[in-house]
Amino acid sequence: MDGKARSQKAALERLKKAQISVDDLWERILQRDKVALGRAISLIESEANHDIEIADELIQRATLHSSQKNILKIGVTGVPGVGKSTFINAYTQLLVNQGLSVAVLAIDPSSQQSKGSILGDKTRMKDIFAHPNVLIRPSPSGKQLGGVAHKTQEVILLCEAAGYDRILVETVGVGQSEIAVYDVTDLFLLLMLPGAGDELQGIKRGIMELADILIVHKADGENETKASVAAIDYKRALKMFPTSKSSWKPVVLRASSEPITGHEEVHQQIEAYFEHVLNNGYLFEKRKKQWRKWFDACMENEFMRFIHTNSKINNLYESSLQKVVNYELSPQKAARKIVENFHLNEQG
Amino acid sequence: MDGKARSQKAALERLKKAQISVDDLWERILQRDKVALGRAISLIESEANHDIEIADELIQRATLHSSQKNILKIGVTGVPGVGKSTFINAYTQLLVNQGLSVAVLAIDPSSQQSKGSILGDKTRMKDIFAHPNVLIRPSPSGKQLGGVAHKTQEVILLCEAAGYDRILVETVGVGQSEIAVYDVTDLFLLLMLPGAGDELQGIKRGIMELADILIVHKADGENETKASVAAIDYKRALKMFPTSKSSWKPVVLRASSEPITGHEEVHQQIEAYFEHVLNNGYLFEKRKKQWRKWFDACMENEFMRFIHTNSKINNLYESSLQKVVNYELSPQKAARKIVENFHLNEQG
Repeated sequence: MDGKARSQKAALERLKKAQISVDDLWERILQRDKVALGRAISLIESEANHDIEIADELIQRATLHSSQKNILKIGVTGVPGVGKSTFINAYTQLLVNQGLSVAVLAIDPSSQQSKGSILGDKTRMKDIFAHPNVLIRPSPSGKQLGGVAHKTQEVILLCEAAGYDRILVETVGVGQSEIAVYDVTDLFLLLMLPGAGDELQGIKRGIMELADILIVHKADGENETKASVAAIDYKRALKMFPTSKSSWKPVVLRASSEPITGHEEVHQQIEAYFEHVLNNGYLFEKRKKQWRKWFDACMENEFMRFIHTNSKINNLYESSLQKVVNYELSPQKAARKIVENFHLNEQG
Repeated sequence: MDGKARSQKAALERLKKAQISVDDLWERILQRDKVALGRAISLIESEANHDIEIADELIQRATLHSSQKNILKIGVTGVPGVGKSTFINAYTQLLVNQGLSVAVLAIDPSSQQSKGSILGDKTRMKDIFAHPNVLIRPSPSGKQLGGVAHKTQEVILLCEAAGYDRILVETVGVGQSEIAVYDVTDLFLLLMLPGAGDELQGIKRGIMELADILIVHKADGENETKASVAAIDYKRALKMFPTSKSSWKPVVLRASSEPITGHEEVHQQIEAYFEHVLNNGYLFEKRKKQWRKWFDACMENEFMRFIHTNSKINNLYESSLQKVVNYELSPQKAARKIVENFHLNEQG
């Protein structure tokens, strides 16, 4: 593997130097070439104008290519220590043994502040790390403009174009990640510890309400009894929530990843969910909503970029900002004054 | 208290019916009239155009009025069950006994999805609920446009105008709240449970890094030994973090709120922090950054409002959205096409 990693790194360097064309890169992505995919993801994360142009073109092609029929995106969430990485390691093995390819991504909206990444993956995901049909990528790094969730959305789209059958998105970092992962995936999978009171787990009602499948994890050995009790508690709690828009009734399962137990049933339920929301149309409704939200984020993003790249408007922005931070004008009024000055070109 | 609550409610109704003028409302806010303040906060939460206009005018006046010299805004965070409400109940008593007035607000960015509020406050904050120098308000409800943090920022500004000496902002609901509270307060206070491993507490490194003061709470009775051990652990952990921009060294304290112990020292440290960041100028730097972020949020907000209230632009937006959700155009490209059509009026 060391040798392989080294040769991959060398290939990546060559690719960088070669100023590879968009067409070449796109063709290679369609062939699920991991090096090309890695390069494309770096372009998405880049802030250089030239890179942004190529990235935008790739995203446009990936959008047109998107049929999304058979690709299921699964969000894997839970408090630190619940075993998200070992769960993914075990579940991905099950998927690849069935001939499926898997992309494992992380999402960390806090990475603007403290550099986020999947730490310790090489050890925790040791059984899948070097597998040819598995791609593992840390959370995209933060940018001033454009949220991290937004960048993850783009990476997911590229993975779809590359034909990964299942895309697992793991939460990392501070709290915002649960909502971010909900906004980019089809299924919300929540891992819980057996025995610990849910108050202690920092899992709030709002998060439990999002769960399509709840797994009492580490349900092995001396935890077995505690896990059974916890499962009954969670089932009762879930019944108190209103029926979700998907009309899917959230299920509570028990599983363990070291040693592996219960993953077969997890898989059956995941596939059952997929069939359910595919058949009743909810899956496409949900994805439409996600794309609408993404589009709005792009609108805001493009607007702020427009402000800052146009010197006249930027001057107006800066002088308004000065008034705001000197408490001479409220942020709201200042913003409205600027926006009121805009209009659409006639040809618009 | 029941009679008082009833008469307050009646006064509020009268105020609503009277179509009270902005001048009257503003004068009453300056006199710290709770009924007027409650009415102003409802205006901020309202989506009716007439209400928005009044709210904007009040915010503008509060901005001009803002000197912010002696008002300290304290964020109170920690996992559910750590005792945030009982802590606030006890700490607020200490403050009012010193002749200070206190506003207690909640922030819950998830309240767009599941209705958030401070639940059970009347019982947990029983000693301060009816105190004339204490205002308690639940999280503002979510709106399509404009985030909840943003609305909380406005409520805080009104409380400053009303002259509350200390403003406590409690986190509620799902994870985003910690970052939201950080963005609107001067001091980040993190409550931790004694004994529970920090992994179990769902407190992630990113959150601990934000803490200016860390309190091992419920450090009484049989928890005392566990709390001492936890305090040493946290002190060690905090030393590993890089020095914060405030050059304030985070402190770890032990306290309990039922019965009350350790609050005197908490208060001393809070005031010491305030003095420290006031003297070295960090407080004003931090507030400037927060206002800049708020201004940017207002810009995005106003822009989207502009899009949707201008029928020609809204049509362009809707037709682009259709292309996006049909996978004919990437969100990024669609957004850029719209924004490229804008320009500034000559007089801008």
